[in-house]
Amino acid sequence: MKAVRLHKYEARPVVEEVPDPEVVKPFDVVVRIGGAGLCRTDLHIVEGQWAAKTEVGLPYTLGHENAGWVHEVGSAVEHLKVGDAVILHPIVTCGFCRACRAGDDVHCESQSFPGIDTDGGMAELIKTSARSVVKLAEGVEPASVAALADAGLTAYHAVKKAVPLLYPGSTCVVMGAGGLGHIGIQCLRAMSATRIVVLDRNEDALGLTRDWGADETVLVDGSHVDRVLELTDGRGAEVVLDFVAEGGAEREAWAMTGRAGSDFVIGYGGTVQMPAIDVISTERNVVGNLVGSYNDLAELMALAAAGRVEMLTRTYPLDAVNDAMDDLEAGRLRGRGILVP
Amino acid sequence: MKAVRLHKYEARPVVEEVPDPEVVKPFDVVVRIGGAGLCRTDLHIVEGQWAAKTEVGLPYTLGHENAGWVHEVGSAVEHLKVGDAVILHPIVTCGFCRACRAGDDVHCESQSFPGIDTDGGMAELIKTSARSVVKLAEGVEPASVAALADAGLTAYHAVKKAVPLLYPGSTCVVMGAGGLGHIGIQCLRAMSATRIVVLDRNEDALGLTRDWGADETVLVDGSHVDRVLELTDGRGAEVVLDFVAEGGAEREAWAMTGRAGSDFVIGYGGTVQMPAIDVISTERNVVGNLVGSYNDLAELMALAAAGRVEMLTRTYPLDAVNDAMDDLEAGRLRGRGILVP
Amino acid sequence: MKAVRLHKYEARPVVEEVPDPEVVKPFDVVVRIGGAGLCRTDLHIVEGQWAAKTEVGLPYTLGHENAGWVHEVGSAVEHLKVGDAVILHPIVTCGFCRACRAGDDVHCESQSFPGIDTDGGMAELIKTSARSVVKLAEGVEPASVAALADAGLTAYHAVKKAVPLLYPGSTCVVMGAGGLGHIGIQCLRAMSATRIVVLDRNEDALGLTRDWGADETVLVDGSHVDRVLELTDGRGAEVVLDFVAEGGAEREAWAMTGRAGSDFVIGYGGTVQMPAIDVISTERNVVGNLVGSYNDLAELMALAAAGRVEMLTRTYPLDAVNDAMDDLEAGRLRGRGILVP
Amino acid sequence: MKAVRLHKYEARPVVEEVPDPEVVKPFDVVVRIGGAGLCRTDLHIVEGQWAAKTEVGLPYTLGHENAGWVHEVGSAVEHLKVGDAVILHPIVTCGFCRACRAGDDVHCESQSFPGIDTDGGMAELIKTSARSVVKLAEGVEPASVAALADAGLTAYHAVKKAVPLLYPGSTCVVMGAGGLGHIGIQCLRAMSATRIVVLDRNEDALGLTRDWGADETVLVDGSHVDRVLELTDGRGAEVVLDFVAEGGAEREAWAMTGRAGSDFVIGYGGTVQMPAIDVISTERNVVGNLVGSYNDLAELMALAAAGRVEMLTRTYPLDAVNDAMDDLEAGRLRGRGILVP
Repeated sequence: MKAVRLHKYEARPVVEEVPDPEVVKPFDVVVRIGGAGLCRTDLHIVEGQWAAKTEVGLPYTLGHENAGWVHEVGSAVEHLKVGDAVILHPIVTCGFCRACRAGDDVHCESQSFPGIDTDGGMAELIKTSARSVVKLAEGVEPASVAALADAGLTAYHAVKKAVPLLYPGSTCVVMGAGGLGHIGIQCLRAMSATRIVVLDRNEDALGLTRDWGADETVLVDGSHVDRVLELTDGRGAEVVLDFVAEGGAEREAWAMTGRAGSDFVIGYGGTVQMPAIDVISTERNVVGNLVGSYNDLAELMALAAAGRVEMLTRTYPLDAVNDAMDDLEAGRLRGRGILVP
Repeated sequence: MKAVRLHKYEARPVVEEVPDPEVVKPFDVVVRIGGAGLCRTDLHIVEGQWAAKTEVGLPYTLGHENAGWVHEVGSAVEHLKVGDAVILHPIVTCGFCRACRAGDDVHCESQSFPGIDTDGGMAELIKTSARSVVKLAEGVEPASVAALADAGLTAYHAVKKAVPLLYPGSTCVVMGAGGLGHIGIQCLRAMSATRIVVLDRNEDALGLTRDWGADETVLVDGSHVDRVLELTDGRGAEVVLDFVAEGGAEREAWAMTGRAGSDFVIGYGGTVQMPAIDVISTERNVVGNLVGSYNDLAELMALAAAGRVEMLTRTYPLDAVNDAMDDLEAGRLRGRGILVP
Repeated sequence: MKAVRLHKYEARPVVEEVPDPEVVKPFDVVVRIGGAGLCRTDLHIVEGQWAAKTEVGLPYTLGHENAGWVHEVGSAVEHLKVGDAVILHPIVTCGFCRACRAGDDVHCESQSFPGIDTDGGMAELIKTSARSVVKLAEGVEPASVAALADAGLTAYHAVKKAVPLLYPGSTCVVMGAGGLGHIGIQCLRAMSATRIVVLDRNEDALGLTRDWGADETVLVDGSHVDRVLELTDGRGAEVVLDFVAEGGAEREAWAMTGRAGSDFVIGYGGTVQMPAIDVISTERNVVGNLVGSYNDLAELMALAAAGRVEMLTRTYPLDAVNDAMDDLEAGRLRGRGILVP
Repeated sequence: MKAVRLHKYEARPVVEEVPDPEVVKPFDVVVRIGGAGLCRTDLHIVEGQWAAKTEVGLPYTLGHENAGWVHEVGSAVEHLKVGDAVILHPIVTCGFCRACRAGDDVHCESQSFPGIDTDGGMAELIKTSARSVVKLAEGVEPASVAALADAGLTAYHAVKKAVPLLYPGSTCVVMGAGGLGHIGIQCLRAMSATRIVVLDRNEDALGLTRDWGADETVLVDGSHVDRVLELTDGRGAEVVLDFVAEGGAEREAWAMTGRAGSDFVIGYGGTVQMPAIDVISTERNVVGNLVGSYNDLAELMALAAAGRVEMLTRTYPLDAVNDAMDDLEAGRLRGRGILVP
């Protein structure tokens, strides 16, 4: 089959023939790819930023946002059949540890992450495990939801954790109206009646957020923190969802979080830092967020099937992976790039 | 001032002159009524159904759903001023017991309930306590929200308790699309992405619910329980909000509640009954619901101010209270009757 | 191997030779039994009470409270090895459905229950699945904990759900100081500072409960409901754990539950019944409870390993199963009977 | 009356005659002091560290941990009577804002803090509000519990928030076995079955913690973080309660917090700091903690009345305030100093 293979860091991947993956273990599942999302993390992988963390051997196949159709199942798989339209939870988990059993799959003690530390889905086929396969509702096209597998899931998971804090009359600040933020806004709107205040550097991006459910938009122009405090009568927000967390956003997120409020860190790159006396005298919290569980992904698919969450996408043939990467790098890609083999 | 006074059970109240209520205690507040909601409970009071429970002395003034403007405040009240537009939490609470401090005002150990066990708001003025006064957002008209003070609050409170159980992909059955149900549906839609299935005996009432956010409607015609089971692949709903709870609805609500699900009793009249083995073998719950807290009412006002919850109302002059009661009794009153002095 | 086989309802089981169970599927595990608990449910099975519900084919092997050592594992099992000391979660679950992934294993959509609807553990060997095997801490003897696998787990699960309601200063009533109750009391003491009030018909049973952590004991003698109300200044308890739920206990449990309180149904036999107006006017709840999850069992094993929960047991050889049943039936069995093959 | 007055920063307070406080407002309460706790914060106040934050006018009376007997009540107070033995919630709150109604009194929008920003309780009498008065159970001596009013309350509040995370089998690290820590350990033991691992620089302090319920003690000697990781199989703790949060403890607390775990900041002085990628890749949280609510204090009093929490104290006459301060400063004061007028 054809696959997008990374041979060397700091050099673009190549599309080449590799052997088809095969079912070996009883719960292995091979999925024919309908669409594989391209993510900024893929650029970072190519740059070598993840090399030390994952220690993945090169060459390997990129692609950690995958959807398609079941192609082959292992001998013990009873609840899936060939041809089922599916989206893949990005992590392959054991199913036996406490975390897996408690709905915290991302903290599985024995996991792998296709596209990150083993072969991913920018290819015609991918091998995963039966535990990672979410069936799609009738009528949902795999390519249209592929990018929800990781970016969307991460946004959904953070929003789901925030919703119990967001009573009607509260304010939720969304830092960043990009790939994750625009899913986050739609999830917030679908699941809460909080006032949604969106911040972004880009006026066009802000303009779109009204249709997704934003109540207020604030341009990041230097006075934005003051503007948010003004909108909250000086109190700050009950929740800040920081989809950026670099370049100063991580400090501003904390500053916009009100007494007894929570600063949800979702993006990364910066350093979260505050005097302990500020933490205790206002009883504020910093909340970490990491991808989401299988059940989270199933719930997000229910939102997508009901039309409550939609993702802007632009498709590219698999061979055009480097065009897609160019577009992403140059900021020419509105919405999410999807590679279709 | 004029007031709607009940002199005798089983006889209609009369509109007559009574002395104005006066501020006596330091936290007393007198409110000029903008609108007082008429509720089926008022009919039941007239019928004498509540006589033994409340032991209220006759004559007294009816009206437990009240909104208006602050008219006079006690010496210790600092956060309210004359002229403020307000809605009244229906219960006058002490503010000192554990329940009041924990946001469970309705379980206050030392409470009174104007319109039920002391003089209410079908009058030009009502006396309440500073703790019961919710300020309205600018532009919200007291008469338009008065009926949210009790009926709406009860629906909101039950929905708020149910929302944590209602993940995307779940089903919530709403029994009854009447006064409480239609607020309940709007609150569910505003605060969750659950699939809302509404049941009612009245096709017209069902017809309206789509606009409020219902996903499915089921006519109560004898096959409705089966229809709900069919809609849930035989599993039943995660939550049933039983706004009826009489005439067999209370048994059907339990039957439509799925494994590990919860049957929220909100209406009353019937008897909830099930073999313990059914309770344990399916791990289902019965959840009681009683009015709502002051903070709940403030949250509901935020929903109303944002246009996410609207109540159908029809206004009557105070003198026409018995016309309004006639209309309610005869089923001619679509939405909620509001008496305007 | 030898096994306790039920050939006919209303006739005692016989001990006879049957073929050893064998590993067939990749996640099958065969466990050598160290101890199998005898439970009142076993008597009910013999009486035929469960025949219609389980539709199990006769003859089959009894025993749903099992612990021992791993004897053989399927080809895909990597986290268990032969000789590991283990206790078995009573239910064999799929690991793929929403419930299994959310820590609600007992609501698995595709489950079996050895000893109830398939061959159990009153035998030398039992076949289960890798998902059901909890490893024991060093030094914990399988026979000493076997009865925690079901009876203990059920008590633990209910207590764990109740604990968030049991702040210091609250009262928890425990109905029944028998097999489940005595574990429930120890779990309550280990995990909360609530005042524990235990009710039982048997003075000797009550006497023992002080050592397990009971604060007050009340003899069930006709005045016991009044006594509990007196102990709670007329308010009733925040939580009632009804381990009996038959013979009137189910009505008394509700009567002893205070405003905004919860009546946990754990035992069965009776009918839970109350006017809807009582449910709503006090906002009380009825909470169903069913066994417990794998993680619950692992937590209970942590309590046992720390010496915070102990079970009274009396061992019998497997051949003496009918002596054990006689003793249980005649009320001669203090603590739990454990069959040791 | 006599009172401990601070006239000048960086100079010790003096004991002098001042006018008795008087009831003015309808909910004012004057309490005769039975004991006033001396706290390290008092030293910091004298040093001037709080001058800019509180802007309190000098001279004023110190003392923010107060217990005694009701001396006089305002005209509207109905639930307290002269002579009642009481402990005072340290904050005077409004009772009308959302926070007060939701059990988050410390976030009251309109509060004062006697002993910090207005006259406190190192005196014969103190004026507070009816909302701040907790009645003591019969037999509880005010002086014996005074120090629980702030130090104990802070520890209790943090533990109460942590308990839902601390299932049997989990580990809770307690940083610091001093004034707050020793109450924290007792509260943890009373309300959870978690494994308690206590860290301190002082071997004697560690020695005492076993009796309070510690399972493991670790001397802070440079290898302590590794020791905790070793005790948790390299995983870190589910919860770290950082009662120190300065001098590097704040960094170690984060390092000892495991995946999906929470680092509770309770002490202060240092700076909490971590790369956002560490926050997200492990989904760890930082949780702020600030004093506790009135209901929290009532619950802590229930623990004290039941003998589940005890505080080491040493009493001094009011006139000896500077001896007590000397002893505290010099590290000669084991337990808490209590001034008795």
